[in-house]
Amino acid sequence: MTYASAVHDGTRTPGLYTYSPRVSSWTVRADKPVTYEIRFCTDVLGPEHTDLATAGGTVGGTRRRIVVIDENVELRYGDRVRKYFKHHDVDATITVIPVDETVKNCDTATQVIRDIDRFGIARRTEPIIAIGGGVLMDVVGMVSSLYRRGTPFIRVPTTLIGLVDAGVGVKTGVNFDGHKNRLGTYHPADLTLLDKSFLATLEHRHVSNGLAEILKMALIKDDRLFTLLEESGSRLLDGKFQDDSGEADEALTRAIHGMLDELQPNLWEAKLERAVDYGHTFSPTVEMRALPALLHGEAVCIDMAMTTLIAEDRDLVTTGERERIFTVMRKLRLPTWDPVLDPDLLTNALRETVRHRDGKQRLPLPRGIGDVVFVNDVTPQEIDLALARQRDLGTSRAEMTGGPDGNGHRTTTPLRSSSKR
Amino acid sequence: MTYASAVHDGTRTPGLYTYSPRVSSWTVRADKPVTYEIRFCTDVLGPEHTDLATAGGTVGGTRRRIVVIDENVELRYGDRVRKYFKHHDVDATITVIPVDETVKNCDTATQVIRDIDRFGIARRTEPIIAIGGGVLMDVVGMVSSLYRRGTPFIRVPTTLIGLVDAGVGVKTGVNFDGHKNRLGTYHPADLTLLDKSFLATLEHRHVSNGLAEILKMALIKDDRLFTLLEESGSRLLDGKFQDDSGEADEALTRAIHGMLDELQPNLWEAKLERAVDYGHTFSPTVEMRALPALLHGEAVCIDMAMTTLIAEDRDLVTTGERERIFTVMRKLRLPTWDPVLDPDLLTNALRETVRHRDGKQRLPLPRGIGDVVFVNDVTPQEIDLALARQRDLGTSRAEMTGGPDGNGHRTTTPLRSSSKR
Repeated sequence: MTYASAVHDGTRTPGLYTYSPRVSSWTVRADKPVTYEIRFCTDVLGPEHTDLATAGGTVGGTRRRIVVIDENVELRYGDRVRKYFKHHDVDATITVIPVDETVKNCDTATQVIRDIDRFGIARRTEPIIAIGGGVLMDVVGMVSSLYRRGTPFIRVPTTLIGLVDAGVGVKTGVNFDGHKNRLGTYHPADLTLLDKSFLATLEHRHVSNGLAEILKMALIKDDRLFTLLEESGSRLLDGKFQDDSGEADEALTRAIHGMLDELQPNLWEAKLERAVDYGHTFSPTVEMRALPALLHGEAVCIDMAMTTLIAEDRDLVTTGERERIFTVMRKLRLPTWDPVLDPDLLTNALRETVRHRDGKQRLPLPRGIGDVVFVNDVTPQEIDLALARQRDLGTSRAEMTGGPDGNGHRTTTPLRSSSKR
Repeated sequence: MTYASAVHDGTRTPGLYTYSPRVSSWTVRADKPVTYEIRFCTDVLGPEHTDLATAGGTVGGTRRRIVVIDENVELRYGDRVRKYFKHHDVDATITVIPVDETVKNCDTATQVIRDIDRFGIARRTEPIIAIGGGVLMDVVGMVSSLYRRGTPFIRVPTTLIGLVDAGVGVKTGVNFDGHKNRLGTYHPADLTLLDKSFLATLEHRHVSNGLAEILKMALIKDDRLFTLLEESGSRLLDGKFQDDSGEADEALTRAIHGMLDELQPNLWEAKLERAVDYGHTFSPTVEMRALPALLHGEAVCIDMAMTTLIAEDRDLVTTGERERIFTVMRKLRLPTWDPVLDPDLLTNALRETVRHRDGKQRLPLPRGIGDVVFVNDVTPQEIDLALARQRDLGTSRAEMTGGPDGNGHRTTTPLRSSSKR
């Protein structure tokens, strides 16, 4: 009973905790090790490829999986998903959930939990598989972190924003009472499989949506990526990252690599000055207010446009650089203005973000192109000034010429369910 | 742009992740450091004591707190809580939630989230304070782990089971669709303040409830603690841990120390053979089925009685040891039988626990007194046999002589809201 004697003489026990009899307290210390993999693959649903079928291992486990997909995936790939698992002799239960921000909430999470309960997964050897866009991955990620206090999960992003953003980090979440991602966890997918062939069926607006996060990475830390977007952004958008010129792969790889470079040393956000928060100061409030009119990346771009103007006013960015940035945003067919913007909304947004950043603005601003500084002293006057200029310089989605999805591509399909083109 | 060049030559980047260009994948590794403190204190709500008022620090923070308490605490200590924070010049918003297992669910969690939203806490410097029983701490703990993906929280357990069990570990949770703690997280309170003076107003049944978890610690690893319960269990129960003989402090300290000794090396349950799971194999299902008739510790005791009989049948425990164990359970006025017990229920319970333990029983059984073994081969026949003997040897709550709370203490107060005695 050595541990018990330690109670009374106050010695340090073998474990990493200390009992101090004078103040009658214990201090417990431990490190939680986390490892996760992000892997590019080709045609992940092709019967000849085993990445997904063997993900999470089957040693000691079973050949059964619950697979959560979103409505878009069901529409376009539902049959292939079912055939894939059948081909690989995996007993897969497919559950379909809705997809957009308006249903990224506790009710949708509860629906997934009920389906998992009904399926009855083992705790550690039957990973939940999520195939879909960023919203799906965020919701399923949160559920998998809560279910039995954490079950493994495997992600297959099917949108560009999923590939470069939601599918790279460890954050999960749902909206709550109109606040974006108010609830969530840090819970990495054990394995994320990146297959850009899914982008072929993505409508252009959603390609632009993902390009906004790629542009963010370029602005905060990668001038070469910015140049690539300047030179090839339109081509990438038109070609939906499907061409083999190498530009698509370079853009994806640079964006993901840059993201991991920022995330890994700060996976749990101990440090609240985060370069990757660029474009995410005003946008959470703007996005939720405009819902469902703006996609996440569109709101982020509007935020980046605003903060580029603040940076220009502070001489952090030259007028020439600001023009280059706005030009790229236009090329990527991203909005740089929205009618919901007004001084009150932005002041509220900043106040909310200050709470989220624990009492300080910690506001990332671009310094030139490819670098960032953090400031804590942006004033309402500065915001008003920038807003007035943004109203002149910016372009809203409605003002963009073109078809009903407002991205310059005439299409006869409805906004959220374009067919393959 | 050193990070960018690493993309192309495959070298290891400075961060703990590796990019491998041949298989086009990244592996991210990181350790999440966790530290938390558990501190004994005296009269935590006394105006002269500052532990609670200064908990979480105020450096750079504000003098405001949201304080979540349960209905029992409101009834007995609501005024003292308000006066305490007022005295220490802390602007405290008190929110009261219901307490028992039947409302340990997502709806109650949502109510707490709404109250926190309304209060508007800063992310890192305004810890949520939870004062109450185990259910309250589990729910508030889960909320604080989810709110903005994690806010600090401070716990003040007011029940014995809170002091020795729920208030010591890092597990949070709510029940879901009749499954105990189906959802939850690992999220330690930054600081837990243990003040046994709260137990003075606890009804005896709830003292017994906590003693069940103390008995568990004794059985799995501390024969000295078992002897202490044998000799002084009745006195501890009658005196509600308030006497100064040293027995109460020794029992509390040993139980907590033993718990931490088991938890610290396995804080996230990487290892599913957990000695502290003793009494928690059949009890989750029994407790939920009997709801609200059995308290958590009562269900745990019924499980320990059953598994002691299985251990006796396997010659792990002698008949004499089994008799001593049952005698202590009786002394602590804990039930060792319940009418809901039947072979089907227990078989279902074991199947459910096997899922939770990832495909194996990993069933802890006592070996003598103060030690434990794990087995994977308990059969339905063994359960039937033990159950038949438990029916004879055990005592249900209803069979216990005494007043309406069935613990031998005549009282005129209703079951869940006894007044101070």
